[in-house]
Amino acid sequence: MSVYLHDIPLSEAQSKLEEALKAAGRHGLLGTEWIPLDENAVGRVLAEPIWAKISSPHYHAAAMDGFAVRSANTAGAKLNAPLVITCEGKNGFKAVSYVDTGDPLPVWSDAVIPIEHVEGLDEHQQLSQQFRHPNAIRIRASVAPWSHIRTVGEDMVATQLVLPSGQGLRPVDLGAIAACGHATICVARRPRVAIIPTGTELVPVGNPVKPGDIIEFNSLVLASQVNTWGGRATRFQFIPDDIDAIREGVLKAAMEHDLILLIAGSSAGSEDFSALVVDSVGEILVHGVAVRPGHPVILGMVDHLKISEDQQEESSSATSTANISGLINSQLQSEELTNKTKIPIIGVPGYPVSAALTGEIFVAPMLARWLGKKPEKPMTINAQLTRKVTSPPGDDDYLRVAVGKVGDKLLAAPLSRGSGVITSLVRADGIVVIPAGTQGLSAGESVAVRLYRTLTDLENTIFAIGSHDMTLDLLAQYLAMHQRRFVSANVGSQAGLMALRRGEAHLAGAHLLDPETGTYNLSYIRQYLPGIPVKVVALVDRQQGLLVLKNNPKGIKDLQDLTRPEITFINRQYGAGTRVLLDYHMRLLGIAPEGIKGYNQEEYTHLAVAAAISSGRADCGLGIAAAATALDLDFIPLFQEHYELVIPKVFFDGALLTPLFDVVNDTSFRQAVSKLPGYDISRMGTQIAEVT
Amino acid sequence: MSVYLHDIPLSEAQSKLEEALKAAGRHGLLGTEWIPLDENAVGRVLAEPIWAKISSPHYHAAAMDGFAVRSANTAGAKLNAPLVITCEGKNGFKAVSYVDTGDPLPVWSDAVIPIEHVEGLDEHQQLSQQFRHPNAIRIRASVAPWSHIRTVGEDMVATQLVLPSGQGLRPVDLGAIAACGHATICVARRPRVAIIPTGTELVPVGNPVKPGDIIEFNSLVLASQVNTWGGRATRFQFIPDDIDAIREGVLKAAMEHDLILLIAGSSAGSEDFSALVVDSVGEILVHGVAVRPGHPVILGMVDHLKISEDQQEESSSATSTANISGLINSQLQSEELTNKTKIPIIGVPGYPVSAALTGEIFVAPMLARWLGKKPEKPMTINAQLTRKVTSPPGDDDYLRVAVGKVGDKLLAAPLSRGSGVITSLVRADGIVVIPAGTQGLSAGESVAVRLYRTLTDLENTIFAIGSHDMTLDLLAQYLAMHQRRFVSANVGSQAGLMALRRGEAHLAGAHLLDPETGTYNLSYIRQYLPGIPVKVVALVDRQQGLLVLKNNPKGIKDLQDLTRPEITFINRQYGAGTRVLLDYHMRLLGIAPEGIKGYNQEEYTHLAVAAAISSGRADCGLGIAAAATALDLDFIPLFQEHYELVIPKVFFDGALLTPLFDVVNDTSFRQAVSKLPGYDISRMGTQIAEVT
Repeated sequence: MSVYLHDIPLSEAQSKLEEALKAAGRHGLLGTEWIPLDENAVGRVLAEPIWAKISSPHYHAAAMDGFAVRSANTAGAKLNAPLVITCEGKNGFKAVSYVDTGDPLPVWSDAVIPIEHVEGLDEHQQLSQQFRHPNAIRIRASVAPWSHIRTVGEDMVATQLVLPSGQGLRPVDLGAIAACGHATICVARRPRVAIIPTGTELVPVGNPVKPGDIIEFNSLVLASQVNTWGGRATRFQFIPDDIDAIREGVLKAAMEHDLILLIAGSSAGSEDFSALVVDSVGEILVHGVAVRPGHPVILGMVDHLKISEDQQEESSSATSTANISGLINSQLQSEELTNKTKIPIIGVPGYPVSAALTGEIFVAPMLARWLGKKPEKPMTINAQLTRKVTSPPGDDDYLRVAVGKVGDKLLAAPLSRGSGVITSLVRADGIVVIPAGTQGLSAGESVAVRLYRTLTDLENTIFAIGSHDMTLDLLAQYLAMHQRRFVSANVGSQAGLMALRRGEAHLAGAHLLDPETGTYNLSYIRQYLPGIPVKVVALVDRQQGLLVLKNNPKGIKDLQDLTRPEITFINRQYGAGTRVLLDYHMRLLGIAPEGIKGYNQEEYTHLAVAAAISSGRADCGLGIAAAATALDLDFIPLFQEHYELVIPKVFFDGALLTPLFDVVNDTSFRQAVSKLPGYDISRMGTQIAEVT
Repeated sequence: MSVYLHDIPLSEAQSKLEEALKAAGRHGLLGTEWIPLDENAVGRVLAEPIWAKISSPHYHAAAMDGFAVRSANTAGAKLNAPLVITCEGKNGFKAVSYVDTGDPLPVWSDAVIPIEHVEGLDEHQQLSQQFRHPNAIRIRASVAPWSHIRTVGEDMVATQLVLPSGQGLRPVDLGAIAACGHATICVARRPRVAIIPTGTELVPVGNPVKPGDIIEFNSLVLASQVNTWGGRATRFQFIPDDIDAIREGVLKAAMEHDLILLIAGSSAGSEDFSALVVDSVGEILVHGVAVRPGHPVILGMVDHLKISEDQQEESSSATSTANISGLINSQLQSEELTNKTKIPIIGVPGYPVSAALTGEIFVAPMLARWLGKKPEKPMTINAQLTRKVTSPPGDDDYLRVAVGKVGDKLLAAPLSRGSGVITSLVRADGIVVIPAGTQGLSAGESVAVRLYRTLTDLENTIFAIGSHDMTLDLLAQYLAMHQRRFVSANVGSQAGLMALRRGEAHLAGAHLLDPETGTYNLSYIRQYLPGIPVKVVALVDRQQGLLVLKNNPKGIKDLQDLTRPEITFINRQYGAGTRVLLDYHMRLLGIAPEGIKGYNQEEYTHLAVAAAISSGRADCGLGIAAAATALDLDFIPLFQEHYELVIPKVFFDGALLTPLFDVVNDTSFRQAVSKLPGYDISRMGTQIAEVT
């Protein structure tokens, strides 16, 4: 068998899988179990409906503390014509009897008069214990039959449907089930999912890493997803890229699980063995689905029968496994049983975003079906795309977006597209599916977003677009403690002002030097934000300088050194405040862009510049001291600059930003910022200007 | 101390509790703990932010399977001018090297050419293993520097903020935390909540019950809520109504918990000891909150110090408890520590709806604060109230509503108001808070609904309003298996048609006899639904008859017997089809309403009528055979009638109802219905008429 990867449409892949599951008798509930009705039942899914065994209440119960009476005896009582009822009625029968809430109603009685509507014959009697057993009571209103009584079945009548099967149980459901007489419930068995990471390059979470090592956390994410969706995940030790070892692992897992997720090796590279393994122990249904990220997924069925044949051939098989397969062989007497030996296997791509989305796209619906509940459909809203995106026309493209509400606009800001960028999923407030056949979407286009969060969450989100500063991370952390999400897109100072102009952000961080005046931001604000009243608030003053490797091995001193042929520079993107600063000083010094190797190599944040230097990709870059310290680089200070927040007045005055101003005036926040190297907080929180 | 219940506004009660928690040093995080980063971390709340320890990727990694090259060496390659690069470069340096996805980039290289863009020099080489180590490669395009490389920090740069504290961890969050180098995380300690049910009348879930017994499930609901909200609940054995025993239980619980929920006995009845207990071991902050249901809630603080004093006085105290209090005494050296000995206690009302809402209103926000996360705000939508509700003007009234989307209208149908009706919470799709100061709401009024469900759920809801039939329960169960929620409000046949007229239901069940023609429904449809095209579909034909106690002790044979003075009847409400049937036959027989004792006593469903008879509230009622069988009554068959579904054409043709027609044509559904006594399914699913 040769590994052959050919993308087919998602819907086609899903139907193939469904057909195979049907043929294998694994399309519906996998099984049921009876469990006690206790706290652990929350989240389990009813496999049988709950019909009331007893009524609730199961007897006529007093609904108030008071006196049980015959309603007919109260006729005629009026405010100005009180009626006295003697407690021992004619013929010695009881006519009035005290009842506490919940007490059963005496058989002779058909109404309760609440104690607060009853007068004692002696006015000091009212609240005494004695009053519970009076000789007579005085009332000033009649009562209708069945007043203040919870009649049998008020809540549930025996035999009625209380909860349908397929219901995922919530706390109140447990109460209702108990109230109608059940102590155990029949729920869907939790599907057992084996998760097998593969790859020689894997190292466990928490181990030291060297270049080429990949921290194995896909199994952690997938196992957590499976458990969250109602399955029971088993994480296997990872297996190196060794086809026999992987095959062995799959065989072992197949014996005791309902689904196998085989992570990585699903593509067609020299060490991608998943397809070969699936083919050897079962059948490949699909290899390649036209979704991004995630396309090299494998869908297949592993066959116990094939496994057992196989075990017999290979003398190396473990005794216990052989016994199990013997057992299975003896049971295989009909085709149906043969089919029952097949369980699904998914070859999950190794890139973390692909892996997590494969879970959402393929595993979640399968588990829902096996649990007998409908798959949870996420809430979908329409939002306006903040920038253009292109998309491979052949694929369904799962675009991760941050969503925020700015004024009346719901905005969707595309996040990193990289299938290795797990933070794009962490930061995602939702997913926009760009369907196959679409080449991309324009900025401003209305898109349907499947939300990961509630709208309330989004309404508490401060959307900042502009220049990056490390203070923003701290700000986000402090705002989280003040019930605000702070979402910042780092696009540079000028692009931030443009976002404000389009009404796409609540504020923009900016440090734009005006080469004419030597002042910051104001002239740009006047140019880019005509007619938009804004306030400018100082955040920090900070040093800009050259970031170089520890001990400055190439002896770089200033901008002039960037022209040396053996020096590779790493630049910031056009429109970034740091880039403006660089260009300003290059002009002053008469240095042309072409004179600097790497001038066209751009990064979007200070930290990315620092990372480029620390990894040897470049020798130096212009940035802030904090970035150097963060990555253990040396810093050659050159300039001091103002980093300010530009805030449209309409948001400045709104409730959303109030906590932001609390934070910038908070002593512990200021202390945290001042501990960052190269930062001056003396002007923090000062209103610099109001531009109308 | 005398028990004194005085309702104060909710906001005032909440502030009092907050102040007391602040004074006790229990207003924020209760504590933190380090836990391993594994599947069990899902749902825990970060107590410390996650800052990246290492970058991700932590090295330059090939993003594709292919060949690492120097980008400069590829200059000039064009489609019609291929370039051959020799793998051993000048001076013996490597110039081309095969890399698998994820491999570290060779230090001399700055780009990767994907294998599919490379031609072998021999055309048979393409996919062979040998091709991984060629002598030279041929390319037809140049590559830009850093193409197909995941550069260091593409996902996360060391030191950047990855997740803020207060984040409730999701599966993908765990992946990001692992990727940036953490193996353990600091999370908020789960608050320990003691749940103590009290009441002599309580019996455990699953025990047989006799009149007056109350099944103890409030602790189950509250414990499940607490666990769901991130706390750790301990359910205590219930304690009888014995003030000393309750006190003892509270003292014991206070030693090892952060919050005590003392269930029932919170009102001011003769067996309500909660307030006395709280007063004796601490301080009552609030007794009575102006919320319905739930007002007799107690908020207080239990004082360890008071407990220990107390323990010293009472020689009966257990040794272990005395030891603990001795320990506490020795630690009490500052006022702050004294305050730290106080923990909150909530006296939770015993009615199940009150208990569950007390959890939502008081416990959930307290746990959120202790976990350092913001309380989850439910999604709120506006819907149109289907009927008028009155409300006590002094209270915040928590009205449970079913929510459905009928056409373009979102509708909120008020459910039972009873604080003992837990099914009102089970069925609730949301809560409408009618604020204090409002006497009620009109039908048709727009109300804000705090949703318990997603909008998607609501869009899959079939809203049926009309006559009750037991088949509807089965229909609900079968529709649940077809991804539809079936919500039925039992208001009677005529009221159902009126609901269709107002556009408030997708369908109505009706069995309205036309006394003139002897036909069913059609004349009523013409009268009540002018201009609304509907289709009428047969559901069942069913027997109506008299429900009486087993063995018919009063020897009832027909309607004429209802006039006997010793017979008490239980009627259906005006507008019910069964009532129309009764009135029709009473007229035929010349029986006047006044001639029947209990004629004015109304119930809304067949089962409620049956329950009234089975409990002895009435001797007989008119209803269907199935209701008699359900409650073990005898049934005297009198009439056969048609029960039909009236469906506006606009919904008949829509996708929402498609599964309904599938179900009524489903063999297993039909079998289930035909097993109900007195049912004839021969016409089920037949379209009876189209009225335009």
